[in-house]
Amino acid sequence: MAKDFTTREENYSQWYNDIVQRADLAENSSVRGCMVIKPYGYALWEKMRDVLDKMFKDTGHSNAYFPLFIPKSFFSREAKHVDGFAKECAVVTHYRLKNDPETNTVVVDPAAKLDEELIVRPTSETIIWDSYKNWIQSYRDLPILINQWANVVRWEMRTRLFLRTAEFLWQEGHTAHATSDEAIQEAEQMMNVYADFAENYMAVPVLRGVKSPNERFAGAIETYCIEALMQDGKALQAGTSHFLGQNFAKAFDVKFLDKDNTLQYVWATSWGVSTRLIGALIMSHSDDNGLVLPPKLAPIQVVIIPIYKNEEQLALISETALKIKAELQAKGVSVKFDDRDQYRPGWKFNEYEFKGVPVRLALGPRDLEQGTIEVTRRDTLEKNVMQIADISEKVYHLLDAIQSNLYNKAVDYRAEMTSVANTWEEFCDLIENKGGFVYAHWDGTDETEVAIKEKTKATIRVIPMDDNCEEGNCIYSGKPSKRRVAFARAY
Amino acid sequence: MAKDFTTREENYSQWYNDIVQRADLAENSSVRGCMVIKPYGYALWEKMRDVLDKMFKDTGHSNAYFPLFIPKSFFSREAKHVDGFAKECAVVTHYRLKNDPETNTVVVDPAAKLDEELIVRPTSETIIWDSYKNWIQSYRDLPILINQWANVVRWEMRTRLFLRTAEFLWQEGHTAHATSDEAIQEAEQMMNVYADFAENYMAVPVLRGVKSPNERFAGAIETYCIEALMQDGKALQAGTSHFLGQNFAKAFDVKFLDKDNTLQYVWATSWGVSTRLIGALIMSHSDDNGLVLPPKLAPIQVVIIPIYKNEEQLALISETALKIKAELQAKGVSVKFDDRDQYRPGWKFNEYEFKGVPVRLALGPRDLEQGTIEVTRRDTLEKNVMQIADISEKVYHLLDAIQSNLYNKAVDYRAEMTSVANTWEEFCDLIENKGGFVYAHWDGTDETEVAIKEKTKATIRVIPMDDNCEEGNCIYSGKPSKRRVAFARAY
Repeated sequence: MAKDFTTREENYSQWYNDIVQRADLAENSSVRGCMVIKPYGYALWEKMRDVLDKMFKDTGHSNAYFPLFIPKSFFSREAKHVDGFAKECAVVTHYRLKNDPETNTVVVDPAAKLDEELIVRPTSETIIWDSYKNWIQSYRDLPILINQWANVVRWEMRTRLFLRTAEFLWQEGHTAHATSDEAIQEAEQMMNVYADFAENYMAVPVLRGVKSPNERFAGAIETYCIEALMQDGKALQAGTSHFLGQNFAKAFDVKFLDKDNTLQYVWATSWGVSTRLIGALIMSHSDDNGLVLPPKLAPIQVVIIPIYKNEEQLALISETALKIKAELQAKGVSVKFDDRDQYRPGWKFNEYEFKGVPVRLALGPRDLEQGTIEVTRRDTLEKNVMQIADISEKVYHLLDAIQSNLYNKAVDYRAEMTSVANTWEEFCDLIENKGGFVYAHWDGTDETEVAIKEKTKATIRVIPMDDNCEEGNCIYSGKPSKRRVAFARAY
Repeated sequence: MAKDFTTREENYSQWYNDIVQRADLAENSSVRGCMVIKPYGYALWEKMRDVLDKMFKDTGHSNAYFPLFIPKSFFSREAKHVDGFAKECAVVTHYRLKNDPETNTVVVDPAAKLDEELIVRPTSETIIWDSYKNWIQSYRDLPILINQWANVVRWEMRTRLFLRTAEFLWQEGHTAHATSDEAIQEAEQMMNVYADFAENYMAVPVLRGVKSPNERFAGAIETYCIEALMQDGKALQAGTSHFLGQNFAKAFDVKFLDKDNTLQYVWATSWGVSTRLIGALIMSHSDDNGLVLPPKLAPIQVVIIPIYKNEEQLALISETALKIKAELQAKGVSVKFDDRDQYRPGWKFNEYEFKGVPVRLALGPRDLEQGTIEVTRRDTLEKNVMQIADISEKVYHLLDAIQSNLYNKAVDYRAEMTSVANTWEEFCDLIENKGGFVYAHWDGTDETEVAIKEKTKATIRVIPMDDNCEEGNCIYSGKPSKRRVAFARAY
């Protein structure tokens, strides 16, 4: 156990920062609000990206790439979008530097001023719909199902590694459809793809639903989302999918001839998840011993550590270790055999425990004699001595068991942290003293939502979409309510 | 054949633009110099990226991600690097927009001016070495072998799709080593990785060697490169790998304690290839019928087109086509069965021919009766009627044959276009009237190189590294020369 490491109880926020930095996931850079994603953190992102990318392709999407820069005037086109987005952006005004002979430093060349400023994309709806305009003439050109993996910049004032950074990596899907129904179906489909990814790969259970008008994406008619619950009882929005109606098509004048030869505006969706998911992953499973990773996304799933006193012992152990490694790799498991001589086994145990490697195998001379191996699982820290003979088979199944256990633990935690409030007092007490999701009746108005947020810092995380609802009265205003919605304090 | 399409002879440059646009690879955007990489072009880039990424990982490298922005002051640190790079860059000066109520448009908020301007990375040596400073204390921390896949921006005045754009996608490797020898070995290794990729995947033969001091990367001690020859006789630099010595370590004060407990500056390399490779690929193989793609990088390797008059025929054909598709997919071949009803077979033939799909299979009712299928290869446009029985096996081998044929054709072309010049007149005549690579003696000075460039527009593409060299006299100055170097006009 890492003794100099903050526990969740001591300081949850510091615990998170310690994990990110000490597990070598990311660090702050010299550029305000921009992080460096280190190799171990990036390997995790690659695993997530590859799974998501396959899911997008399996649902018919292709990748493409659009410009990093957006002309400033584009931001004036879609009014609602501007209001919601056009504030904190990085603005490019010049295109040349020059050497200043007097100070012998580099300065901005004042002569190289752009006629129109360029904005570093905070999201790409505008520049993409500017292209779609040329791609779409007839219903035959629809649907367009495109995704982009890219960096985006939002000039956040208060940043936290992965959770909120000025630059972050994400994917943004942008689709164009001939009908409203088809676009809504697409937006819902992508919410479900995200939920599938969160639950079956990240082992993070999520609520699905729609956002209240107040929390909708700028320019959206409906925002679908998935919401996860962190171990401090706060919710985290893990992915959103927007039905944009015809707003962007109208802003960029994108029309198509339908089958009846009538000119119609195109229907749109957009949807995205980002490196923020790594923050959600950390805060869902990790513990006071460091990072805990679900096997399906762990860059290293199994580490084998030799315990030896001399070269001869290491040679014998290596032979068996490499055989186990090969067997596991043949089953598609990623294995690291760490035979570095400059570190002691105890140091390595700590290292991989802290980095959340799901399974650790330790192999010493006595194990070899007895045909055994020590198996430690990261989620429970349980140690077992097992037979070497069928170890690869056992470890393979153990990885599945760990994946399920993490998910089930998270489901149980969420169940424990989900409450129903029937009165305003109950509601305030739950939000303040227990945290988690609180289901309560809401009258459907912006004013009530804003008032509740001001008084409790809780927001509506999702309005559930199922039919399982009963009418009641708003906990705040007492006015009639069609169904309970999920409130929580959130990241 | 696409009749309204420019041939190479008519206008090589227009031919190139036509291919890029009509094969749906990329197009210009509303942002000056920035392109949109369309799904088919991006799929090609993904294939290239995945192969390269595996090669980098197989040689011990990991991916990471560093900030998009670089503080302006960093550019003043490494003097030579500044001179070579710090000119045409996108400069971020502000971080907020606001709504102007008078004009009802978005304007830059003058109050939100950055204290220090940020430069959109044109390459990342400076920001990365600023991080490495904190990562490196002892020889145990070395080597660092990191690669980054990223977008970069260089404010080019004259842009061409893929070949030279303001924003482009690339990878940049940045490694840190304890010794000069190890760094040199790394730089040479990566040149060879690039050459392997160009020759065995892109089917593009390349010259390997080092650049003359004049053509070196800003801040490098030695620049290794690979040079390819395009069908118009011009050379194209397809990848570079730099031995940076201790220049960046000194600029960012990165030292390590060696095994003898002495503080030493770290040794560095950097190496990169970009979406420019797509330009090289197009100009190496494509013809007057459109794009020609090597099977190993083609997003679609085989297309199956049904020829039918009614639903019943299509149903029968589909059954066989899907069986062939499944067989090929089982062999790892990517296959598209295009049964879209709104397009006629002839239109589809043209479409896939233009898009460079290596093998086209056409299947009609008579074929089914006779157990045959029509097989057309894109490289030679040869058509053959083959037995359906073992068609997947035959197509699988045909893809190999096409890959080899493209490479061999390119090797033959380069051989034909490689000359030796012994006099200045000969040299000028070859450069002006024949093109291609011209091997000639050079006295090793910048002045001569610059003079030759001014008079002929030819530059030294590579100084070969092999031992196969004879002394002679410089074609321009007559001074002694140790070996011939490869000149060409270049992209």
